[in-house]
Amino acid sequence: MPEIATPASTKAYDRLRALQREAGTLASVSRLLGWDQETYMPNGGAAARAEQQSLLAGLSHDRATDPRLGELIAECEADANLNAPGTSTAANLREMRRDYDKAIRLPRALVQELARAGSESQQVWKKARAESDFKQFEGSLTRMVGLARQKAECLGFSEGGELYDALLDKYEPGMTAHEVEAVFTPLEKRLSVLVSELLDSGRGPDDALTRAEVPADRQHAFGLMVIERCGFDLERGRLDTTTHPFCEGLAPGDTRLTTRYREERWTDAFFGTMHEMGHGLYEQGLPKLAGQYEDVPASHFGEPLGESISLGIHESQSRMWENFVGRSASFWQWLAPHAHAMLGSGLERHDADAICRAVNTVSRSYIRVEADEATYNLHVMLRFGIERALIRGDLSVRDLPGAWNERFEKMLGVPVPDDRRGCLQDVHWSFGLMGYFPTYTLGNLYCAQLWEMMNKAIPDIETQMARGEFGEILTWLRTNVHKHGKRYRAGELCERVTGEPLSAEPLLRHLEGKLKPMYGLA
Amino acid sequence: MPEIATPASTKAYDRLRALQREAGTLASVSRLLGWDQETYMPNGGAAARAEQQSLLAGLSHDRATDPRLGELIAECEADANLNAPGTSTAANLREMRRDYDKAIRLPRALVQELARAGSESQQVWKKARAESDFKQFEGSLTRMVGLARQKAECLGFSEGGELYDALLDKYEPGMTAHEVEAVFTPLEKRLSVLVSELLDSGRGPDDALTRAEVPADRQHAFGLMVIERCGFDLERGRLDTTTHPFCEGLAPGDTRLTTRYREERWTDAFFGTMHEMGHGLYEQGLPKLAGQYEDVPASHFGEPLGESISLGIHESQSRMWENFVGRSASFWQWLAPHAHAMLGSGLERHDADAICRAVNTVSRSYIRVEADEATYNLHVMLRFGIERALIRGDLSVRDLPGAWNERFEKMLGVPVPDDRRGCLQDVHWSFGLMGYFPTYTLGNLYCAQLWEMMNKAIPDIETQMARGEFGEILTWLRTNVHKHGKRYRAGELCERVTGEPLSAEPLLRHLEGKLKPMYGLA
Repeated sequence: MPEIATPASTKAYDRLRALQREAGTLASVSRLLGWDQETYMPNGGAAARAEQQSLLAGLSHDRATDPRLGELIAECEADANLNAPGTSTAANLREMRRDYDKAIRLPRALVQELARAGSESQQVWKKARAESDFKQFEGSLTRMVGLARQKAECLGFSEGGELYDALLDKYEPGMTAHEVEAVFTPLEKRLSVLVSELLDSGRGPDDALTRAEVPADRQHAFGLMVIERCGFDLERGRLDTTTHPFCEGLAPGDTRLTTRYREERWTDAFFGTMHEMGHGLYEQGLPKLAGQYEDVPASHFGEPLGESISLGIHESQSRMWENFVGRSASFWQWLAPHAHAMLGSGLERHDADAICRAVNTVSRSYIRVEADEATYNLHVMLRFGIERALIRGDLSVRDLPGAWNERFEKMLGVPVPDDRRGCLQDVHWSFGLMGYFPTYTLGNLYCAQLWEMMNKAIPDIETQMARGEFGEILTWLRTNVHKHGKRYRAGELCERVTGEPLSAEPLLRHLEGKLKPMYGLA
Repeated sequence: MPEIATPASTKAYDRLRALQREAGTLASVSRLLGWDQETYMPNGGAAARAEQQSLLAGLSHDRATDPRLGELIAECEADANLNAPGTSTAANLREMRRDYDKAIRLPRALVQELARAGSESQQVWKKARAESDFKQFEGSLTRMVGLARQKAECLGFSEGGELYDALLDKYEPGMTAHEVEAVFTPLEKRLSVLVSELLDSGRGPDDALTRAEVPADRQHAFGLMVIERCGFDLERGRLDTTTHPFCEGLAPGDTRLTTRYREERWTDAFFGTMHEMGHGLYEQGLPKLAGQYEDVPASHFGEPLGESISLGIHESQSRMWENFVGRSASFWQWLAPHAHAMLGSGLERHDADAICRAVNTVSRSYIRVEADEATYNLHVMLRFGIERALIRGDLSVRDLPGAWNERFEKMLGVPVPDDRRGCLQDVHWSFGLMGYFPTYTLGNLYCAQLWEMMNKAIPDIETQMARGEFGEILTWLRTNVHKHGKRYRAGELCERVTGEPLSAEPLLRHLEGKLKPMYGLA
């Protein structure tokens, strides 16, 4: 791809990039406000934080809708060199156009209101969740759903589609609710069958050893050791604790992971950390720093070429490190002795195979982020159904806990004990993030498909993992996914890299291939 | 002061306040960037942080110099009600005018350059300090001194004054280098005599017990207990660790203290924490939240009425809690049993009196922030002399270490072992903060004078401290200092509260009264 190394440029294009970089810098400040709110901000700072977020959202919106920006994009689009098919400049312009056209549809007041209300509502959610009391949160959520609908109406959607599409499109460009449904419906059926088969076998592993009491500081040291070994650069990132684990690609050279430690279940934080690290490796791999890749000499921070493709692709990275690496037998061959030494707490009585089996235990549980690989997507599908109904107006916020509990029991087979372990468990809706959840399952699908391809490219991948070597895996991801930024759309990248359109088969092959033998079914 | 409770208002004044609040919100975001840079930011984020700070500095400068702001101030100044002598509105307008007139003298490019260079230079300083290598820092410091001089030239100074005045005036409004010199010269003489008398007596306490090894987590828990007891609201603040302790009044309801733990000397962190808490109590006491005081119903965040008077007054608050409370015999009567229980490490073998004597040990030491009360001001005077010479051009940055070491030995009587314990110890100059140091000693003077007055107002203050009761002390400070914001200038407040202009006598009385008996001289 020499066109990345020697891109066409013009004065207008340079000015465009400079404007984008400034907007990117402003956005990076908002991300710091968000990170701090989730990690260190005292409760008393909440009102001021909402005011700060609202102010910055307004300033960002002014930049995103600046008529000068529109003029420069148009001027560059008219330049045949810049817009030559297949060039990086054309990809950048395509995405800048998309972002600009979306931004000018949103009124400034709505953008500010969403930022302020989201920041406030998140504080309300925190308390409601801690006290497992949905009533406290109902008003805030009603406001956020209303704002999300307003936003969707401004953004619009294609003919034959629905309001939800307008929201989904922000996170998974080009995808519609109908398309998601078409993938999810058969997947749900096959997963339900698989989960029943596994659990009815009565011969699965049990996860008793994951309940060894491990002090938080040991878990933290262990997590740091592993992410560093996997290639996460701690000079350019950190790991903190929070209520709801997340990764923030805060700024060039500054990627922050968070996790939460439960002393009575060390695997929660461990796999949470692996998951966020997968996101973090993607963020660190995006060409945001000059000279990061030989054939991408410039920093593309603030431009589409320096951004992730979609949340689905982002999630494919986190799930790969969490599950395809982190829950593999080879990985535990390397890691078990370290777990024995660093975590202790009786784990030293269990060998690699026992630990690997335990961390692959399938169960009907309440918390999405702690769910096993097989049931996880059922949790996501539940949320997709509910948020779609909320946006359609088929479900009112007041009826949310009831609807959640009913559908949950139907899908997962166990009753929900309380709202904390039910509809209050996720932070997303409190921020107004709707249309976001389906990208989790899309991510699992992209992940499995990329993983099969990577296994062909790195035939001794299992041996490498068993030695604790992850360099080739990371290089493959850097080369095939990370360094391209938003150059390709998700579906296009999938086809380019794997030669096939997105399909659920690789994920099902992975789950059946790993879990059935563990449950004595193969 | 009924004029605070029922202020005059007009449309123009309301708009002015709204603009100021927005500018205050933007400034609060910059403070978060600064706090994060000092506490949690990974090294790799430094370049992006400089870019963020520079962008925000530019945006803040645009607001501070907005011609609309100037017009609104002028319109309000012409309103006899708003500008009636002695009203809070007049005080607000007086200070807004001062800020505006200063801001419009500074070119935007210089403001941005100062922010960017300061952020970059601070990273260079960090490394140079860690490696005790001034050469690494020389280039950055040369740049910062140059920028500080440029800034001073833009701001200007009164006839008969000098360039340094322009910088000092930002931190201690109205004060000149000449006035500082007039106070410092005789003070230096009397302090030098006192220090020599004490140290020549050969009968002072020793500080061996401060070198008991105390784990950082115990020190942290102890510090938190004490600051909460003193009245610092941890729902509206926090305490973190950093290289150079500071307090950031980040935003309304969000005041952050930092400290640093040395396991081999628990008193460093403890008195550092008490010091920053003093700043923090002032920040929490400024009327930045609506309803904070019965007679100040509105939030004055972003306005002069919600800001501290000067750095000297700020420092008077930190030094009061650190030294006048924290190093008093009564305070240790209350705290010693807690120190025994919470810190352990052999401290339980020392009673309140022994601890109090140990923490009042006078010695010729290298580090300003760890210096005892008697020698502390000598450290400050050294810096005042050096930075004044740098700004005058009488001293070049290259010659700084030599000049520092020579003057230090002359003033403190011991040779400087290395730059880390010499001219690299403070963060201030790396940010371009020049004209700032003298406010530390001015703070000690204000503090002693306020303390004498408070002792008259609270006759049983010693009994209260001995019971660990600090409510009346804090209320006195809130009522007499905190709640007025910038309503009075420092000298005016001093005269209003104490009935006298600023004088060095109270500080000398305090030091001689406490230290001479401990050294067998009285």
